[in-house]
Amino acid sequence: MDAFSIIARDGDSLARAGVLATAHGDVRTPAFVPLASTASVRGLAAAEVAELGYDIVLGNTFHLFLRPGGELIAGLGGLHGFMGWERAIITDSGGFQVFSMGHGTVADEIKGRRGGGGGAGSILAIEEEGVRFRSYLDGSERFIAPETSMAVQAQLGADIVLAFDECTPFNVEREYTARSTERTHRWLERCLRWRESHAAVDGSLFYGIVQGGVYEDLRAQSLASVLASGCEGVAIGGSLGREKEQMYEVVEWCTRGLEAAGAERPRHLLGIGEVDDLIRGVELGIDSFDCAMPTRLGRHGVALVPEPANRWRVELDRPRWRESAEPLLEGCPCPACAGGLSRAYLHYLARGRELTGARLLSAHNLTFIARLMADLRAAIIAGRLAEVAGALRAGAAPGTL
Amino acid sequence: MDAFSIIARDGDSLARAGVLATAHGDVRTPAFVPLASTASVRGLAAAEVAELGYDIVLGNTFHLFLRPGGELIAGLGGLHGFMGWERAIITDSGGFQVFSMGHGTVADEIKGRRGGGGGAGSILAIEEEGVRFRSYLDGSERFIAPETSMAVQAQLGADIVLAFDECTPFNVEREYTARSTERTHRWLERCLRWRESHAAVDGSLFYGIVQGGVYEDLRAQSLASVLASGCEGVAIGGSLGREKEQMYEVVEWCTRGLEAAGAERPRHLLGIGEVDDLIRGVELGIDSFDCAMPTRLGRHGVALVPEPANRWRVELDRPRWRESAEPLLEGCPCPACAGGLSRAYLHYLARGRELTGARLLSAHNLTFIARLMADLRAAIIAGRLAEVAGALRAGAAPGTL
Repeated sequence: MDAFSIIARDGDSLARAGVLATAHGDVRTPAFVPLASTASVRGLAAAEVAELGYDIVLGNTFHLFLRPGGELIAGLGGLHGFMGWERAIITDSGGFQVFSMGHGTVADEIKGRRGGGGGAGSILAIEEEGVRFRSYLDGSERFIAPETSMAVQAQLGADIVLAFDECTPFNVEREYTARSTERTHRWLERCLRWRESHAAVDGSLFYGIVQGGVYEDLRAQSLASVLASGCEGVAIGGSLGREKEQMYEVVEWCTRGLEAAGAERPRHLLGIGEVDDLIRGVELGIDSFDCAMPTRLGRHGVALVPEPANRWRVELDRPRWRESAEPLLEGCPCPACAGGLSRAYLHYLARGRELTGARLLSAHNLTFIARLMADLRAAIIAGRLAEVAGALRAGAAPGTL
Repeated sequence: MDAFSIIARDGDSLARAGVLATAHGDVRTPAFVPLASTASVRGLAAAEVAELGYDIVLGNTFHLFLRPGGELIAGLGGLHGFMGWERAIITDSGGFQVFSMGHGTVADEIKGRRGGGGGAGSILAIEEEGVRFRSYLDGSERFIAPETSMAVQAQLGADIVLAFDECTPFNVEREYTARSTERTHRWLERCLRWRESHAAVDGSLFYGIVQGGVYEDLRAQSLASVLASGCEGVAIGGSLGREKEQMYEVVEWCTRGLEAAGAERPRHLLGIGEVDDLIRGVELGIDSFDCAMPTRLGRHGVALVPEPANRWRVELDRPRWRESAEPLLEGCPCPACAGGLSRAYLHYLARGRELTGARLLSAHNLTFIARLMADLRAAIIAGRLAEVAGALRAGAAPGTL
């Protein structure tokens, strides 16, 4: 039996609703996957994330490889046991983080969390065998190859394993992207060979990653290689362009390509998205998304609200909220809204950088996104996606449609 | 009817169990009062603090006066409405914080929370009228008098209001302590006059503060003044000495003095305590305690455990916990222990300074203290205090006695 069952399709778009069966329960799709990069959804206990309605979280192979190490986590029941999360886990391969060091964006990712004694990480060499780099934690020299990534993801006990890829940035030339994409495919084969020879991966699903930057032919070649490899799922990664419209175009190349190939495998869009990206991504036939946005915004005093003109955001540290008795969002069941807390109070906590504020806003934002995804899924099943997506885009509150 | 009812007394000590009726519900005593200095128990939503079994929290007049101001909070339903806490609130007067600036300890208090544009606060002048100082937030010159403190506490809507006092440090001479204590009494009278002329304070209880440092005669004089003033309750403040034994001696002077005077008013010990201090304080006849300890330790990776030899602490960032599958405390109902999380996981979160770790340890520590206080109260009522206090001192886990 296939792990992924499509239970409904939208007539007017590529959207579909499904159920992805994993060793740790079913994931209802389309699904948003909160980040638990370093073994916690920041500010929330695992049980709280489940209570918000999430079926799956994403762990980060790169960060967990460096600290505390896959072996240690394996000895404590895998990532599920380590962090007390009983539902599904997808682990990214570490490719994005290791290559981001070469392009300066890992600094954002690890901002505010860098421990003492370290200094920023950096790539020492990208070779056919793998990547040598300096740990951002202690400056030590480390090496990750496709086999390393597979071994660590197996130690973590991931339900969904991602291939180790080279993540090419936006600003490289077509020629580099083409060569890099070819290497990514050779690494994909090595990932699969490692998995074939290791029984420890039984029960996990393996997703190949489609690269190819913003080049349609390279995306098509990459897609063909991933499909030919026999992966259980397909992730879309790498540079998705400079603007949202280009990103949607790249995603559509991939999902239309999958449709044309008759491939019903689950599709994950890596590192996206914002509210409008999630709505559009669902219409483009994406089944799951991961993104730091809800919790990262929450830690920085930003709450999600149904205001498309403000990118669905309210920046609570702004002076205009200083005396506002208004709640974040009437009818929202999160602790802040259901508890009757005012924007003035959340403004005060945000300005003081209080732990309680970071936590309340993270929980609100995850509640908002959970309800958004539930609305989209229910709409697909009910044959009302165009209507519901339109209402959400126009500023309807999730959970009211 | 008196607000405070003593429902049981221990035969062998000064301990008593009681119920303190406030405008926001009953407080079961002896009680620990978690700090919500800046309108939140750090890392927890108000509803969660209530779920842990706490009847009362402490707000900080000094910090809330500076930001966001008493008027703003009054306009949003007082501190209860502002922070979404429906049970009782005691507010300290600001005396401790404003005088600490002169002695360098406020730096600790506000460590890690100081906003931009500020610079440390400092005292500009201590006058008969009040205290002029620079705000630690923005360097602006501010003034607090006894009347200011009363007005702000009324705006906050405190159920229990503390007198504005000069908090003398340990290292000043007897002569300074004597003069300061006399001024504190003149300020006490001004606090009471302000309250008599303002109906806004109806329903709140007023506690005078006993000062006098480590000088028995000054403590006795201060106690007599506080009792003569007709305060509804008595708080013990100021320097309690260099060592625990001296602190216990100073506290006993005060509580024995209250017993000798036949004063059944509720007694609060300010800014104490650690686990052994709470046990001893209860035996010495203290009815309530406030302290930053449980949440502050939690934010710094320290958990409370029944290990007297280690001051009831385990420092989770130590390397020895790196691979420990042990829970913090078997049978503890907090989210970390009930969720089956290991010390290795909490070690990992503490080392990474993860929000989730600060929150889990804060909740664990508050659970530990709530159960400790519940044990002591139940023991007084059951006539078993000596036995239960002995077991707790010997390392019994709270909640198992």
